This record gives sequence, structure tokens and C-alpha cells, in this order.
Amino acid sequence: MANTDLVLTWFHTLVEATANVAFALSGLLAGVRKRLDVVGLCVVTGLAAFGGGTLRDVLLDRRPFFWVAQPTWLWILIGLAIAAILFLRAGHFEFTEKAIQWPDALGLGLFTASGTQLALAQDLPAIVAVLMGVVSATAGGVMRDVVCNEIPTALRDHRPYAVCAFLGGWAYVLAVHSALPPGLAFIVAAVVATGLRAWALVTGYQLPAGRSAAPGD
Amino acid sequence: MANTDLVLTWFHTLVEATANVAFALSGLLAGVRKRLDVVGLCVVTGLAAFGGGTLRDVLLDRRPFFWVAQPTWLWILIGLAIAAILFLRAGHFEFTEKAIQWPDALGLGLFTASGTQLALAQDLPAIVAVLMGVVSATAGGVMRDVVCNEIPTALRDHRPYAVCAFLGGWAYVLAVHSALPPGLAFIVAAVVATGLRAWALVTGYQLPAGRSAAPGD
Amino acid sequence: MANTDLVLTWFHTLVEATANVAFALSGLLAGVRKRLDVVGLCVVTGLAAFGGGTLRDVLLDRRPFFWVAQPTWLWILIGLAIAAILFLRAGHFEFTEKAIQWPDALGLGLFTASGTQLALAQDLPAIVAVLMGVVSATAGGVMRDVVCNEIPTALRDHRPYAVCAFLGGWAYVLAVHSALPPGLAFIVAAVVATGLRAWALVTGYQLPAGRSAAPGD
Repeated sequence: MANTDLVLTWFHTLVEATANVAFALSGLLAGVRKRLDVVGLCVVTGLAAFGGGTLRDVLLDRRPFFWVAQPTWLWILIGLAIAAILFLRAGHFEFTEKAIQWPDALGLGLFTASGTQLALAQDLPAIVAVLMGVVSATAGGVMRDVVCNEIPTALRDHRPYAVCAFLGGWAYVLAVHSALPPGLAFIVAAVVATGLRAWALVTGYQLPAGRSAAPGD
Repeated sequence: MANTDLVLTWFHTLVEATANVAFALSGLLAGVRKRLDVVGLCVVTGLAAFGGGTLRDVLLDRRPFFWVAQPTWLWILIGLAIAAILFLRAGHFEFTEKAIQWPDALGLGLFTASGTQLALAQDLPAIVAVLMGVVSATAGGVMRDVVCNEIPTALRDHRPYAVCAFLGGWAYVLAVHSALPPGLAFIVAAVVATGLRAWALVTGYQLPAGRSAAPGD
Repeated sequence: MANTDLVLTWFHTLVEATANVAFALSGLLAGVRKRLDVVGLCVVTGLAAFGGGTLRDVLLDRRPFFWVAQPTWLWILIGLAIAAILFLRAGHFEFTEKAIQWPDALGLGLFTASGTQLALAQDLPAIVAVLMGVVSATAGGVMRDVVCNEIPTALRDHRPYAVCAFLGGWAYVLAVHSALPPGLAFIVAAVVATGLRAWALVTGYQLPAGRSAAPGD
């Protein structure tokens, strides 16, 4: 049992690190595209990686933030930004963007599950807990795009992203109501959110669009 | 007396619901104009409706937020966004925009009064309390426009909006200093802010502009 | 000794006021350039002056905010915005922008030192404390630019600004680790950050840029 726990902890740390780096890389790529300097790269990388979790913690009035409890991550972000300035070439873009889609889907599942779990632990209503999961998973990307002066991708590209987080959050709530232990509910939620996202990536599924758009697309 | 209270509570709930829906609709229209998907519509609708009150509560360190205490509103927002995708047509825009101006003015008055009241209850200085009223009434619209990648309307259209909230907030402060009970001060503030806004809508009054603008309008 | 303290306090207040006004003026100029109305001017002026410190305080969960403890500053901002509407002409722009560079560098040093000091007082890790210094000094300018619908200058102009704050923050940490009293560490940090910024202004030094930018500059 203790051994299983250790393997789970180790596995969890590895998955979490992969997810954080994937979120950070999405910020890095956005920053390089916008020709930000090294400071700008640090900021958008940091917002993409930690913005969602930090906003969730501000809303839930939780301290310390992830990056205060584990400040090593701040050094990793700075290292990533400097490495991007030194080594990233335009030719690497397409490959990197494709390559991070899968760890990013992992991150989506993980942040959804942890956000929903933390909110439920404060006895918040289910819909609010699910919303906190969605905020954890998506608000960083929204901040990244706002700082880069773009309409956030998550709000307009008709690809399911926040929707996967939303359904993953409900999976957590359902699992807990079915008397599953929190650890298992966490895994269920992460698998549902990541799985739906992966399925959307593979099939290219798009959310239904309204017919109300103004003329002149 | 109890009857009056009941009628007042009922009336207050109705007015509040009208105001929230008006704020939400302003977000919905902005989102549809920007061709956001259903997730984007939920986000801008939520920011427009609850962004101001939530920012106020973060600044005042108040919990729970309105949408945590009354999570039904989150379902209403999601319902509005889905209804907009299904039913809203371009032809409805002009009518909807005109139609929401009046409940929106109601919302302005109500949020101003409640923001000022909550801040004064924490013994904050009058100018800070008034500012919290203005934040409650206007910050949601600012967030809506920032996410939609626009310079916020409230900051540049020279129509009195935040100014009405500012004066309404001072009306509250004055009323309280004149030893009026908080309930009456609330009504005075809401009537001043809403009334000024209604007057501005009817007369088309514009704030004086600076003469410092760069050439090439 | 008491005399020295009094002179220091007086000097500190003067320096602080100069720095606040410089930050506020940077917001004012940005707002006038974007043709904001008087409400918009108040908002960007306020964000530029107090946004960084307020974000730091929200992250550190500190209350009261600077502008709550010293609400007179809110009146000063409103006065500045009205004065800009009345008196600022296009011809004043270039002069004002040059003139505020130096008090702005002062503000950079001061906000860096105070942000780092406040975070260290909460026993946060050094890198987090330095980050809080950087946030205090730069986040207001970032918010100003986001509201004005620009990619924030601090993130893309390749001039050292946040970097000066970053190094100033480390100077504070080093000074404290060398057992200097906090007051002296404060001065060391402010001098390092302001000095580096002044040196960058004089020499026109630019941060190294990545070679990864997309074609079509």
C-alpha cells in the first residue's frame, strides 16, 4: 500500500511537471510570436502556467499559491524564457505546437480535477466547484492571450477546451456523490477531461456555432 | 411593517434579477458580435454580470461571492449563452441593445448603492466606499471589453456612466451622514445613479472632452 | 537620531509622492493618447499608479491597500485627470514624456524595494519576494496598457525595466542576508534598481533579442 502510494506520488509529480511545462510552453510560443522580450516571455509563460491556479486561489482565498510553495518553478520559467531567446527558431514552431497538444491535454485534465477538488473541500456548491476547475484549467490561457492583445483562443475557436474541463469537473462531482474516494474521483475527472480533449484533437470536432454572426466573416 | 418588509424584499429581488440579466445581456451581445463560441459567451456574459461585484469583493476581502451564495445564477448564464447560440439573429441586435439600456441603468443604480454600502460597513473612507460602488457598477463591463479586445466603452465614450455611479455613491454617503437609515440611503443612491443615467440616455449628454487629442481623428 | 529619522521620513514621503505622481502621469499620457474621457483618464491613471501595489497586496493578502490607507491619493488622481482634460495640449506630450522618465525611475526603485521588503516580512522565499518587488514596480504599467488595448510596453520594448526591478530585488535579498538593517537594504535596493534604469535611459541599452521572430518585421 505504501509502495503504491509512493509510485502514485511519483507518477503524480511527473504528470504535474509535464502539464506545467506544457502550459508554460504555450505561453512561451505565444510570446515569441508577438516578439516579446525576455521579460515579456517570462510574464506570458508564467501567466499561462500559473495564472489559472492563482486566480482560482485568489477566488477561493487560499494561500500559499503553487509557485510560492514550490518556488523552483519560477526558476524553471525564467530558464525556459532564456532558452527560448537563445535557441528557439521560427522553424521549431509548428513542431512545438503540435508536440505540446498532448501534454497540454494532460494539464487540462489535471488542473480541472485539482480545481474542482479544492473547491469541494471548501463545501462550495457543485456548479461553483466545477467552475473553479474550469478556471484552473483555462484562465491562464485567457490571461496569456489578453496580455498578447488577442481575443482569447479558448473563447472563440469553437474547439472544445473549457467544455472538456466543465464535463471533467462534473465527472468529479458525480464520482464523489457515488461515494468514490477523492483520489479515485480525481483520476476519473482527469481521465474524462483529458480523454474528451484528446478525442476532440483527433476528430477535429467543433462546437456548434450560432447563426447570429454579423455579415462579413 | 413585516408586510412592507416582505414587499420590499420581493421588490428588491425582482429589481436585482432585472439588473443582473441586463448586465448579462450586455455581455452576451458583445460576445455574439465578436463571434465567440458558447464558452466565450458564457465567459463574457459572466464577466459582465458578476465581474464588477467579484472584483469589489476581492478588494474588500469579502466571501462568499454573489455567485457562490446564489449559484443558480451560473445556470441562468449558461442558459442565456445557449439560448443566444440557438435563437439570437443579427436582426435582434438593435432592438436588444435599445431594450437593455433601461434595465442596465437600473443595474447601475443598484450595484452602485450596494457597493458603497458594503464598503462603508467596513468603515472605509467615503471616497474609497464611493469607488467600490463605481467598481461594482462598471468593472464588469470593463472586463467584458478587455476580453473582447476593445478599449472599454466606459472609459472612452464620453457618455456619463461611471460618473453617474460616482455621484450616486456620494448621494449614499451624504444620506448616511444626514442620519438616514441605510435602507433609505440605498434607495436614494440607486435613484440618483439610475436617474442621472436615464437623464443622460434621454438627452444624449456628453462629458466635456479634452482639447489635447492628437491630430488625425 | 530622532532628527535623522524625521528627515528620512520626510525625504521618504517626498520621494514616494514624486514616484506616485510619475507613475500616475504615465497613465494619464497613455489615456490622453487613446482619447479616453475623464472617467477613462481616472481609471488608467489609477491603474498605472496603484495597480502594481494593489495586485501585490491581493497576492500577499495584505490589507489595507495604499489608496485605502491614504485616500487623499484618490483625490489627487481625479484632480490630475481633470487638469489633463482642461490644460494638456498635444504640444506638451514630448516634454512630459521625457520629464517623467526620471521620477518614473525613482518609482521603479522605490516600489521594487517596498514590494520585496513586504514579501520577505511574510517569510516568503527569496525568488517570490523579488517577484513581488517586480510586480509592485511593473504590473500597474501592464494593466494601463492592457486597458488601453496595447501589448504592454514592459513586455516587448527590449529596454530594461522589469529587469532593473528584478536585480534591485536581489540586491535587497543580498543586503538582508549580509545582515544589513532593513532600512539600509531598502536604500540599497532602490539605488540599484533606479541606478540601473537611469543607466539604461542614458545609454539606450537594449536587452538581447531572440532570433526566432517570424519573418516580416
